[in-house]
Amino acid sequence: MQDVARAAQVSQTAVSLVLNQRAGANIPPETRARIQAEAARLGYRPNAMARALRQGNSSLLGLVTDEIATTPFAGDIVRGAQEAAWQQGRILTLVNTNHQSALEQEALSTLLQHQVDAYLLASMAHRSLQLPALLRGHPVVLVNASSDDPALPSVVPDELRGGREATGHLLALGHRRIGLIDNLDDSVAATLRVAGYQQALRQAGLPVDPALMVKLSGWQEAGFEGALALLRRPRRPSAIFCLNDRAAMGALDAARELGLRVPQDLSIIGFDNQELIAAHLRPRLTTMQLPHYEMGAWGVRALLCPEPEGQRQLKLHCPLVRRESVQPPGADFG
Amino acid sequence: MQDVARAAQVSQTAVSLVLNQRAGANIPPETRARIQAEAARLGYRPNAMARALRQGNSSLLGLVTDEIATTPFAGDIVRGAQEAAWQQGRILTLVNTNHQSALEQEALSTLLQHQVDAYLLASMAHRSLQLPALLRGHPVVLVNASSDDPALPSVVPDELRGGREATGHLLALGHRRIGLIDNLDDSVAATLRVAGYQQALRQAGLPVDPALMVKLSGWQEAGFEGALALLRRPRRPSAIFCLNDRAAMGALDAARELGLRVPQDLSIIGFDNQELIAAHLRPRLTTMQLPHYEMGAWGVRALLCPEPEGQRQLKLHCPLVRRESVQPPGADFG
Repeated sequence: MQDVARAAQVSQTAVSLVLNQRAGANIPPETRARIQAEAARLGYRPNAMARALRQGNSSLLGLVTDEIATTPFAGDIVRGAQEAAWQQGRILTLVNTNHQSALEQEALSTLLQHQVDAYLLASMAHRSLQLPALLRGHPVVLVNASSDDPALPSVVPDELRGGREATGHLLALGHRRIGLIDNLDDSVAATLRVAGYQQALRQAGLPVDPALMVKLSGWQEAGFEGALALLRRPRRPSAIFCLNDRAAMGALDAARELGLRVPQDLSIIGFDNQELIAAHLRPRLTTMQLPHYEMGAWGVRALLCPEPEGQRQLKLHCPLVRRESVQPPGADFG
Repeated sequence: MQDVARAAQVSQTAVSLVLNQRAGANIPPETRARIQAEAARLGYRPNAMARALRQGNSSLLGLVTDEIATTPFAGDIVRGAQEAAWQQGRILTLVNTNHQSALEQEALSTLLQHQVDAYLLASMAHRSLQLPALLRGHPVVLVNASSDDPALPSVVPDELRGGREATGHLLALGHRRIGLIDNLDDSVAATLRVAGYQQALRQAGLPVDPALMVKLSGWQEAGFEGALALLRRPRRPSAIFCLNDRAAMGALDAARELGLRVPQDLSIIGFDNQELIAAHLRPRLTTMQLPHYEMGAWGVRALLCPEPEGQRQLKLHCPLVRRESVQPPGADFG
């Protein structure tokens, strides 16, 4: 600032008033322009930290997540939030708490000391969260998580509608015996996706047949075992809705093991659209897109531009991604 | 601080001297203890930002990456760096530049304004990086990237040794016709892994046979096409080394397509150990572990505790992960 003042031949106070955009400063326009030109020429960067301290807020946003490394989804939430933050001239500070509450406590405490005053709390699995006591009174938006508190803004995937539309897609093609593999334990996502499956069947006037529903824990292996069980039944399903893409990958292996071609002999639909898997299986997997990028971006916008009476607890649509693993049922299932 | 001074019946200056741990402050031990007790009782948290400003450094470390969302690896670098940072009482500020140099420039400029004065620069694909001009004079460590500047510390996977050991594992089991699928274009990783493959063959007294090496661009699809090409040759290989797990996943599909059992009729070894795929294929994939977590952690330690004459340009070992896709060759290959 001293250098700018010397070059522009004005007082340091004038430089400070102009560069910090203080309201009510009575500086002639041409002096203001000269100060700004010299500041640009000299590569002056405002000390954002000092300014934040003075103004009581900083340009940092905190994204606190329970885990990031164990799921490839996390990246999409981070990327969505990061890009939306940048559009608003903010930096995203990412902290990974690994589900450890002591670490979460310390992370939040330290971020608060650093004047990080607005937070996204993101969960990698859609779940219900409590607002940490330290964050009471601070702007907070939940991402991929919800809360009992109606005043706390949140964004989650519309899992119920996703389950309904996945099943509806199979029904629309003529499938009537649709199996379900639930490998997600008793998570929020599983409960709602299964409810969507049941709603779609009932709306089509079909019974919900417990013999077509398999529940096991695990990833691809659960999909494999679940599909073997469904496909070895006397009246096997013509299509299977897997609650996620990893189960669908295992179900595809099971179909191969039994000599069934997908989609000619069996249709398989997944959920999540995990690019690494879904877009590269043989055949490529039809699935439902989790809106992780959009949730991250919406979270930041809701944090920075809260609408007084807007949609505070948003459910985002999970659109169908059509690839090659689904077609109308064969003649056997007429 | 005013509250603490009042409760401890001392001056605010005394409180400041004790709580900011200023050297040379002449405060009697019992007064010091009283101040600390009152500060703890009142929940006083030092204003880290004010302190950082005064001391000219903050407790924030910057992790600047070119991309995070498109590879599940990124999470492991972040997790390793985050956990090592926490062990040193630091917060990691993650910024994703999406390979846009204008964004990188703006990100670094803003972080510097926020007194973030030490940086990890992480690349998602092992490559050579230039130090951004803005970071000259700041502590910087490269992660999964190297530089021509010998003074710049860096940590990368030992790709050459990894390629040699993957091939060596197949050789040790008796394989003599070992195919190679290179789907990584002309990256640093590809060049070194292929060189490792060639070294291992030569060390075993075997020729490097160009007819056993296939080079194509792409992911699982490249592995599929590459394996079909190798396996349809008159004298097919008994084992294939795929330069990454995604190609290995495709090669497995190709073996199935041709009615070859893995590992009985064909051994397949991958590279990377992408947990989502490698640990859940049928059969589960033997592969080489990329040390992403360790690189992130090493990077932070090198940043915070630089050794004057230590290993400044480190290559980390990629250990073999034994699963089910490799066994000795069948009798046909005796």
